[in-house]
Amino acid sequence: MRGFAVSEYETRLARAQSMMAAQGLAALLLTTEAEIRYFTGFLTRFWESPSRPWFLVVPAAGKPVAVIPRIGAALMAQTWVSDIRTWSSPDPVDDGVTLLSDTLNEAAPHGRIGIPAGPETYLRIPQADWERVKASVTGTFVADGAITARLRAIKSETEVEKIEMACAIAGRAFARVPEIATEQRPLSSVFRDFQRLLLEEGADWVPYLAGGAGPNGYGDVISPATDAPLQRGDILMLDTGAVYDGYFCDFDRNFAITNATTTAMESHQCLIDAVDAAAERAQPGTTAAELFHVMDTIVTGGVGGPDTGRLGHGLGMQLTEGLSLIPQDNTALVPGMVITLEPGIETVGGRIMVHEENIVITETGNRFLSPRADRDLTVLQ
Amino acid sequence: MRGFAVSEYETRLARAQSMMAAQGLAALLLTTEAEIRYFTGFLTRFWESPSRPWFLVVPAAGKPVAVIPRIGAALMAQTWVSDIRTWSSPDPVDDGVTLLSDTLNEAAPHGRIGIPAGPETYLRIPQADWERVKASVTGTFVADGAITARLRAIKSETEVEKIEMACAIAGRAFARVPEIATEQRPLSSVFRDFQRLLLEEGADWVPYLAGGAGPNGYGDVISPATDAPLQRGDILMLDTGAVYDGYFCDFDRNFAITNATTTAMESHQCLIDAVDAAAERAQPGTTAAELFHVMDTIVTGGVGGPDTGRLGHGLGMQLTEGLSLIPQDNTALVPGMVITLEPGIETVGGRIMVHEENIVITETGNRFLSPRADRDLTVLQ
Repeated sequence: MRGFAVSEYETRLARAQSMMAAQGLAALLLTTEAEIRYFTGFLTRFWESPSRPWFLVVPAAGKPVAVIPRIGAALMAQTWVSDIRTWSSPDPVDDGVTLLSDTLNEAAPHGRIGIPAGPETYLRIPQADWERVKASVTGTFVADGAITARLRAIKSETEVEKIEMACAIAGRAFARVPEIATEQRPLSSVFRDFQRLLLEEGADWVPYLAGGAGPNGYGDVISPATDAPLQRGDILMLDTGAVYDGYFCDFDRNFAITNATTTAMESHQCLIDAVDAAAERAQPGTTAAELFHVMDTIVTGGVGGPDTGRLGHGLGMQLTEGLSLIPQDNTALVPGMVITLEPGIETVGGRIMVHEENIVITETGNRFLSPRADRDLTVLQ
Repeated sequence: MRGFAVSEYETRLARAQSMMAAQGLAALLLTTEAEIRYFTGFLTRFWESPSRPWFLVVPAAGKPVAVIPRIGAALMAQTWVSDIRTWSSPDPVDDGVTLLSDTLNEAAPHGRIGIPAGPETYLRIPQADWERVKASVTGTFVADGAITARLRAIKSETEVEKIEMACAIAGRAFARVPEIATEQRPLSSVFRDFQRLLLEEGADWVPYLAGGAGPNGYGDVISPATDAPLQRGDILMLDTGAVYDGYFCDFDRNFAITNATTTAMESHQCLIDAVDAAAERAQPGTTAAELFHVMDTIVTGGVGGPDTGRLGHGLGMQLTEGLSLIPQDNTALVPGMVITLEPGIETVGGRIMVHEENIVITETGNRFLSPRADRDLTVLQ
């Protein structure tokens, strides 16, 4: 099924308004893609264009009010939102500033207006316009206490199904990597072909692909592909965030080209062991920090993770969102959280291997959403 | 060629520093993907993750200073930037705030620090952290006068080559649409397959695809595809922003499924005529508003554009950037600007067709970067 039943949005809204009441907030102002989609279902790739601001006002009672460029009116009208206020954007004189200010003054004339202010948030509005909004609004802007982030961290069953669908799509694409990755194929071609496989297997689109290749691992995990051909003995890693109906998977797979060194094979087994140990521990009440330490003990002996700084994170409407598996994050797991387990290991000086799986926390423990990789490193002949 | 010669970055920096001097700016602070890449060449899809902030400080003299999460250090070290300061991110206590503040206090201890504040910009840092940075910095943040946007608006020859490469890739993919779009194919499959064609023809990735299908046109141009099958007589439109080496094309094509109505055929001819008339006029000194009126006169008789609000825009490192072809934008064209010509027309009540091409402004006029569409609507048999 595409999208969500209206009841899902009603639930999200009711929870947000309950949290708003607890904080004395008269309204929420949201400006970014995931935040606006969470409360509306407004799904479009048009956010790729930076040229227009988009706003959603969540009042203390009643449905959200969309304050958006006219180009989005038809699509927003297909959602459950009924109060849709538009202007012709871009407008170099007043790009929604007055319409937004009027809407906020109506919803929260003298109240506290919550804005996302914590980790992973930003205000998607030009600073000059933001100053004008602040000057025009009779209420007061305050941090929203991460209401939207806290709600998004715990997925509904339907949300989990969408992530699981994305994971299954990527799993089928990974199973077909032998078709595209052979000695002498340029890494850039492998990247292109893997995105094609993801689409063929059902991804709506492929916002994220990273990876690397080299003897006994790769130098980092965020570089774009070069045209360097795969060599016998290389470890190839592909890490994808593929999207199904607006929800991400985020996991990777490692492959040895033609043959694998003992170092690479043992490193891979160590990574799988770390994931298994974390999955053994992950259940309601376990903290993000505990999962970090479980894996870190196995991959480094407990002296700290690789340069990524974390060994996993939440995911959902965004490639990464919510908690981090780091020593400083004491967030306790809750049923409905979807997280990645992503240990990394230094194989030889300056080279790493990273393995990643996706799990959902259940009432009694957890369940893998990604099809689990074999402990033995796959060798592509 | 991938990337740019160091001399290109040196030129960009020298121009920025000259504009900074004219405005009395001691430093620029940049926080978003395109802005940071413009001065560094730091190209990665990792920006898809919202979890970490990234900063670039451009001092009044000397090279830019990168203040970035450690996970990006290896890739940044491959650019021409030599002063790379990192921290282990995400850090829930201090996610780069102190490191950034110290860097700014060193570069501009009591000076004016420019931040992008105008159209299409935002500060990619959580509001709570931004307040802390403002409190820690001894200098003063001011609007930067759109220095980076003004520089980016005028492309170098190498930048134009990359956009032209992206356009050629998309052109080859559009030529293969007959392979994928036939009666009864679901629109969602056509979207998937078209992304696959773009990859096969050489796109690094496909950040943007939109479109629509229906009798005599479509309802809007930003909705995701549904599973509805293509019907005889539908007009199918595909609009893509495909990327080659970090630069976008942005153009579309319309196709009639099996047969075309006179309305659709004449509408398409009208759109081509509008593009031709704008291309006839586009040269240094012509304003964005003039191009709007040239096209609007042809597609509406001069009563205003469709709900898109504009009939074209700049493009380059982003899908849309810079000027808008609207009545209120009096920006004069300059050699090196790359823009889209994107007229829309209402075919029947509530339905539109949109056509788009990409051109670069030259010393004497302009040159098409996208392979020009035929005036006659293509009918897929």
